[in-house]
Amino acid sequence: MTNNSIIYGKNAVIEALESGEREFNKILISNNSRTDTKIEKIKELALQKGIIFQFVNPQKLNQIEPDGRHQGIIAQISPVKYTGLDNFIEKYAKTETTVVILDGIEDSHNIGAIIRSCVCAGVKGIILPSRRGVLINSTVEKTSAGAVNHIEIIKVNSLVNAIQRLKENNYWVIASDHHADDNYYDIDYTNMNFALIMGAEHAGISKSLLKLSDFKVKIPMLTNFNSLNVSNAAAIILFEAVKQKGKNHG
Amino acid sequence: MTNNSIIYGKNAVIEALESGEREFNKILISNNSRTDTKIEKIKELALQKGIIFQFVNPQKLNQIEPDGRHQGIIAQISPVKYTGLDNFIEKYAKTETTVVILDGIEDSHNIGAIIRSCVCAGVKGIILPSRRGVLINSTVEKTSAGAVNHIEIIKVNSLVNAIQRLKENNYWVIASDHHADDNYYDIDYTNMNFALIMGAEHAGISKSLLKLSDFKVKIPMLTNFNSLNVSNAAAIILFEAVKQKGKNHG
Repeated sequence: MTNNSIIYGKNAVIEALESGEREFNKILISNNSRTDTKIEKIKELALQKGIIFQFVNPQKLNQIEPDGRHQGIIAQISPVKYTGLDNFIEKYAKTETTVVILDGIEDSHNIGAIIRSCVCAGVKGIILPSRRGVLINSTVEKTSAGAVNHIEIIKVNSLVNAIQRLKENNYWVIASDHHADDNYYDIDYTNMNFALIMGAEHAGISKSLLKLSDFKVKIPMLTNFNSLNVSNAAAIILFEAVKQKGKNHG
Repeated sequence: MTNNSIIYGKNAVIEALESGEREFNKILISNNSRTDTKIEKIKELALQKGIIFQFVNPQKLNQIEPDGRHQGIIAQISPVKYTGLDNFIEKYAKTETTVVILDGIEDSHNIGAIIRSCVCAGVKGIILPSRRGVLINSTVEKTSAGAVNHIEIIKVNSLVNAIQRLKENNYWVIASDHHADDNYYDIDYTNMNFALIMGAEHAGISKSLLKLSDFKVKIPMLTNFNSLNVSNAAAIILFEAVKQKGKNHG
């Protein structure tokens, strides 16, 4: 069993059961768990869907997920489905679409939190490079609170090629870069497709991607402590776009 | 040695050395570490300040921080200094001040990320309840990227009393609550002192605190997946305030 095929934690399991996006093999529940409303809900959903659940010794769970974050529950499931970029572009060709590009982000908590904000902000896809950074693992799934099941995950060999494809297909490309001249709130995000690039925690966005960007934006700070967490930076920019869209439609 | 008196990770150690806020006992560096610019900087700062550093077997570091997040470096330091609420109020009486109240947040990563955003957003203090939630531990310090050294950490026995004290001292109290009618961007954050309350991940803000709030605000979403991470929600609201203040002054 690979790391990609388990999820753990009550909320993540409930989300995956409700979304129906993933095939469940089996749900393992610690026989030490106190029954609460969430465990009850999981059992009920599993019964409805004909999914096996088993009560097991907590040591069994610790073997599968040794870092003690399983909260007494682990599900063995099919891996996240990745989508091809061309399929994605075609699927969303007729709607105003936002996609987020993660350029080599390494922290699974950050990737999970970004995906969670993306789903809340109506972002339709996440683009990850297949060779650098982290792909979707069980920490990403848990931190995303199940949001990985509500967004297209697009794995590409080359971010440069991906950005070129997006530009050919009428996407504007916006890079979050703290050296930028423009503030993130000076851009009009309405009535366009856009791709937002977020860079790795320390290195920032690669020069080759910055060069391809149509806009570079920074988040102005009130102090010299110029160091926002990347998932918080993504949330700030994405929800500026949500706000503009809400005001536009309202 | 308690958990409160170590920090680990290169950036967190550099931050603490540079801030000068904390007393160092000793810095331990794995003798397996490759020397890089950050390790060089740590050695240089330690020499300047007369702080002992030792090269030790990596197993020694694993004993102190067993979760493998130390990146080959651990510093033994004085605990974070907590400030009293009255001292805080007095110290910032003559400036426009923002403070953030964490109502029972349990995840150390979230607390660290919130503190980091707070410092970037010019927030002057964080109020934590002494009996619930998490106080400042080494995970909070590391996730905050050293921001804990750039903000007043205020520990109180009762959040209800703390909010009453703040209100008596000319602070407006804003609660982040997804049942609210008002949107976070409909508030004018300029020219006032305010306290922003963020609630626990699942339970939200306690009723007794909601009742004391002057404003309740929600973050409107573009989908039904109504589940922003609490640190991202805090960042969105705080940077709306930063934006308004920037535009006001500019």
